[in-house]
Amino acid sequence: MDLTALRTAHPDHWNKAAAIRTLTLDAVAAANSGHSGMPMGMADVATVLYEKHLKFDASAPNWADRDRFILSAGHGSMLLYSLLYLTGYPEMTLEQIKNFRQWGAITAGHPEYGHAPGIETTTGPLGQGLANSVGFAMAEEIQRARYGRKVVDHHTYVIAGDGCLMEGISQEAIGLAGRYRLGKLIVLWDNNNITIDGTVDLSDRTDQIARFRASGWHVQQIDGHDPEAIDDAITKAKATKKPSMIACKTHIALGSSAQDTSKGHGALTDSKLIEDAKAAYGWTAAPFTIPDTIKQEWERIGQRGAVERANWEVRFAGLSERRQIEFNRAYARDVPKRLGATIRALKKQASESQHKLATRASSEMVLELVNPLMPETVGGSADLTGSNNTKTADLGIFTPENRKGRYIHWGIREHGMSAAMNGMALHGGVRPYSGTFMAFTDYARPAMRLAALMRIPTVFVMTHDSIGLGEDGPTHQPVEHLAISRATPNTYVFRPADTVETAEAWELALSSKETPSVLSLTRQGVPTVRLEHKMNNLTAQGAYVLAEAEGKREAILIATGSEVSIAMVARELLQSAGIGTRVVSMPCMELFAEQDEAYRRKVLPAGPVRVGIEAAVRAGGWDRWLLGERGREAKADFVGMKGFGASAPANVLYEKFGITAEAVAGKVKALLGK
Amino acid sequence: MDLTALRTAHPDHWNKAAAIRTLTLDAVAAANSGHSGMPMGMADVATVLYEKHLKFDASAPNWADRDRFILSAGHGSMLLYSLLYLTGYPEMTLEQIKNFRQWGAITAGHPEYGHAPGIETTTGPLGQGLANSVGFAMAEEIQRARYGRKVVDHHTYVIAGDGCLMEGISQEAIGLAGRYRLGKLIVLWDNNNITIDGTVDLSDRTDQIARFRASGWHVQQIDGHDPEAIDDAITKAKATKKPSMIACKTHIALGSSAQDTSKGHGALTDSKLIEDAKAAYGWTAAPFTIPDTIKQEWERIGQRGAVERANWEVRFAGLSERRQIEFNRAYARDVPKRLGATIRALKKQASESQHKLATRASSEMVLELVNPLMPETVGGSADLTGSNNTKTADLGIFTPENRKGRYIHWGIREHGMSAAMNGMALHGGVRPYSGTFMAFTDYARPAMRLAALMRIPTVFVMTHDSIGLGEDGPTHQPVEHLAISRATPNTYVFRPADTVETAEAWELALSSKETPSVLSLTRQGVPTVRLEHKMNNLTAQGAYVLAEAEGKREAILIATGSEVSIAMVARELLQSAGIGTRVVSMPCMELFAEQDEAYRRKVLPAGPVRVGIEAAVRAGGWDRWLLGERGREAKADFVGMKGFGASAPANVLYEKFGITAEAVAGKVKALLGK
Repeated sequence: MDLTALRTAHPDHWNKAAAIRTLTLDAVAAANSGHSGMPMGMADVATVLYEKHLKFDASAPNWADRDRFILSAGHGSMLLYSLLYLTGYPEMTLEQIKNFRQWGAITAGHPEYGHAPGIETTTGPLGQGLANSVGFAMAEEIQRARYGRKVVDHHTYVIAGDGCLMEGISQEAIGLAGRYRLGKLIVLWDNNNITIDGTVDLSDRTDQIARFRASGWHVQQIDGHDPEAIDDAITKAKATKKPSMIACKTHIALGSSAQDTSKGHGALTDSKLIEDAKAAYGWTAAPFTIPDTIKQEWERIGQRGAVERANWEVRFAGLSERRQIEFNRAYARDVPKRLGATIRALKKQASESQHKLATRASSEMVLELVNPLMPETVGGSADLTGSNNTKTADLGIFTPENRKGRYIHWGIREHGMSAAMNGMALHGGVRPYSGTFMAFTDYARPAMRLAALMRIPTVFVMTHDSIGLGEDGPTHQPVEHLAISRATPNTYVFRPADTVETAEAWELALSSKETPSVLSLTRQGVPTVRLEHKMNNLTAQGAYVLAEAEGKREAILIATGSEVSIAMVARELLQSAGIGTRVVSMPCMELFAEQDEAYRRKVLPAGPVRVGIEAAVRAGGWDRWLLGERGREAKADFVGMKGFGASAPANVLYEKFGITAEAVAGKVKALLGK
Repeated sequence: MDLTALRTAHPDHWNKAAAIRTLTLDAVAAANSGHSGMPMGMADVATVLYEKHLKFDASAPNWADRDRFILSAGHGSMLLYSLLYLTGYPEMTLEQIKNFRQWGAITAGHPEYGHAPGIETTTGPLGQGLANSVGFAMAEEIQRARYGRKVVDHHTYVIAGDGCLMEGISQEAIGLAGRYRLGKLIVLWDNNNITIDGTVDLSDRTDQIARFRASGWHVQQIDGHDPEAIDDAITKAKATKKPSMIACKTHIALGSSAQDTSKGHGALTDSKLIEDAKAAYGWTAAPFTIPDTIKQEWERIGQRGAVERANWEVRFAGLSERRQIEFNRAYARDVPKRLGATIRALKKQASESQHKLATRASSEMVLELVNPLMPETVGGSADLTGSNNTKTADLGIFTPENRKGRYIHWGIREHGMSAAMNGMALHGGVRPYSGTFMAFTDYARPAMRLAALMRIPTVFVMTHDSIGLGEDGPTHQPVEHLAISRATPNTYVFRPADTVETAEAWELALSSKETPSVLSLTRQGVPTVRLEHKMNNLTAQGAYVLAEAEGKREAILIATGSEVSIAMVARELLQSAGIGTRVVSMPCMELFAEQDEAYRRKVLPAGPVRVGIEAAVRAGGWDRWLLGERGREAKADFVGMKGFGASAPANVLYEKFGITAEAVAGKVKALLGK
């Protein structure tokens, strides 16, 4: 690599890029950890992108019509932090750069959404950013169709590494972007041929160019250190109507002795190496010091978008007031005022009609009312539309020809779907929900965790939530998936018992601003258990007394979802035997845990024996409510699953696995010594 | 589709294929559930495969050198059950076919490994079988290199559907097979252009031919209903040295009124439809009845391999006795006799040297001793070789040029790696283990669950198992992943505290025949806590008293992994304050739960207060040991994580999140009211 030639050919460019490289070297050295090589390799690409193409205004980083920049190769976080500091994002101070990877700094090891403006998504788990970007680009298309090009017209840029492209989720993202012709999505591949274990060909020899082309992408190959080539390629990528991939041939850890090696991927902290690299860059400034002229050039880049933004503000003000309010409401994640009344009306009707209905069908009933009310919702399914009941009459199908469509056929891609939903939520202005079978939580997990970590309210509609799905058998029957989602911080897991609770759960999920929701819904019909209409959203308390004991209260049955009606039948059996039995419905353990001690004690007082009922493993959080909260081991038991399910009709499975009212009553009697 | 032309062109073939189609129709109708269309569409391909190519002997279904047939599109299970019944696998009786999807039948909704010989793997979750097949093919290559072509020389055939190819895991499998040039892997793609939601192009327009080619596959396109074309294509696929994909253009639900529609994907139960389809096939036999001549032809196919098998037996007998024993031992999943002594010697040495070492490094020490002893082990990493410490000096790298290599560079593909490991374990003769960061359990989940469900002893080496990994931050710090694996039935989760426990955990993982293991290992150094050598494997009991209280026993500290040494320091603090404190190390909750009540009571007696310590969420099974097992809410507490981690040096994180000996001692004192 002839650095001198590069330096002399484009000295201004070179110095700006060198600022990224040296900040990276300094920050990683100070932290004694991190990843130097990627920012050093991609500095030229990033410089050209920010200088000539990215539409942004560092002084207004949340401008709705900004281009989005996503660093899918999140380990190269110093690239992003450098750009934010250099272009003058107020939050990204030099002090933060110096505190890279330290407690309390916004400059975490990997970019964390919410830490600072300009960080559009949390990345690090590879491939996620790339799949997020599909959702960003879809949200842009949908919003553009709704509000017009004058108000919504921006690109989504992604830097992805070899790791992003090896993860399977990349194929899901590539396939989606190709099929939906997301022309404003531009992926810059850091084609450096190096992974942690060695050269890429050690484990992969895929022709990435051919692979992207096979899914309908526009593809270019360039020298990722040639600013003119980079500029030209991005210009062409913006012009095409296909999603674009630019393969940028780069040298990892450019200019250092670790260039083009696996060592270069990690933390370059050797002082001699750093010194030599800086010398090769022609960089003489002290550590963490950017010469004024260079910093000023960068800051001009940060201000470049100010005029465009001001013009946008004028155009936005030209929207009708109603449209402006709607636009801003959706970005603020506020629900429309009428949502509450709509939900209450449905609850009342359901309590009156007392139908037997699968909660997935109840969910569809709710959505039929909600979707016309909330134009920001975007639904979908991983090829299980008829099973997940996520499609409503008014949504329309999102296609290249119909950008107003609000229903996405995601294909058999639970992971890509979930990550793209996160991208939509992060983009703002839309509120995504989509479905799959609950057992396939497993496929969606990495994205579900990131929704929780990022504090975004993605809604995961998980139907067929137990052995109650029947004959498809144990591969499709979740038993540990409630436990998985409940163990994940900042996640609401709703398991509603009937239409009323389903409506309440949806109201909470749609009102949530910083917590994703998992809706655990049945395939099979369940009777209405909320026979008396209550104005209040009882699910908001997490658990509540559904049926009080008659006579002396000797037992409390705690159940969720499809097992609440079993608890109600068990209560009948027990009351007939003279055992006063309370039934507690517990649609959301997390919300119940958030209630104050007094309320929890009211619902779960000391004294009575307790039996938990859920067609899942006890490890799903049950011991707290059975043994804790004034409970005691000798006075508690659980009716549920001890292992995987089996293939048979649902009613047979409930019988064979002993999840019956009789079994519940039997356990209560045994605990009471009766 | 001109069925008459097909029937008359190849009448013998047609009738055999029609037998599959009609059995499928009859079984699905009887079950009133299932998937008719795929077996009806792929019957021709499967018939030719079994008749002309698949090396098998229905009377000896576990013959080690048989070809493997994997139905990745597992919802088409009736295809496989039909083939097994027709060719005469003794277990697959007509009665079983009639009881399709019923309780106790081996004919589950999706093929379940272990239910019947001939079912090589459990499929249903899409893409898994395809990724399993990479492991099958690798195992074959490795065994062939070791034992020679005379003893090991077979193919792996896969039927995959559109869903398999849309799931991201397919790209990981395709990339791996291409890079490792798995020439004996042949994938038959059921190219029917139909998914549940509609035609494939609704959600995907990828040119699959180009995509497979981009990763170095040999690709053919054929009419999947033309037996000569199928035969010819499979013949060519066997001849090439590349992995092969045959795109079989088929009609889902062939010959029925639901042909080429989404409806055809599911359960065709309408009697008129079934009647008409059978008429179109020229099929006049009663339901579940195969005319004798057709059944006999099929049974001859089932016997076709008997001679070849007998010849193989002779060749196998020609191996040296030592080689035969080794071969059979590995297939039986027996460990070599010397393993126990080797582990004990290492334990003794570790207890004596009392080094401070990360448990991932301890794991490497164990593997350096185990791998030379167990030639059946195959190690690897998802591009984190130096971090996971899974590579030992003697393994050699598996490449197309070195099939004796026992270390796999999986690339950044946790999911494909895990599913391929399952394939290896299912193939037999090899014992797979591979590593990634524990947080990426999320990526591997679908395969980890299937290992548990299939009862195979895959070993998942999960390093960097807590906030102890430090600066990489919350995206890389597991907090809920112990909970996730512990909630999964039939999974051993080992979290060893030091070198001694790591050696014990490995001994158990390697000795396990039907349970996968998760090894949760630290990045950071931890002191030796097992200072006194014990011959017995204490980890086998799941938990044990590591340090007894001096004086009156007032407190029990229960800890795992890196937190055991914190418990030991807390014990010192408490003993100094006159509080008699026992420390229980609990490296495997599942094994402790399996111990009898008497032992559990000995370890966790009633009376003392209890504090659990683990740098993870309490939901990871802790309440049982703290509140249950003679524990009480008022006398128990937990020191661990309440939410996601952060980016900072590990020691700072432990301090900031309050996972310290002082915090533990403080909780004990508070519980004791001191």
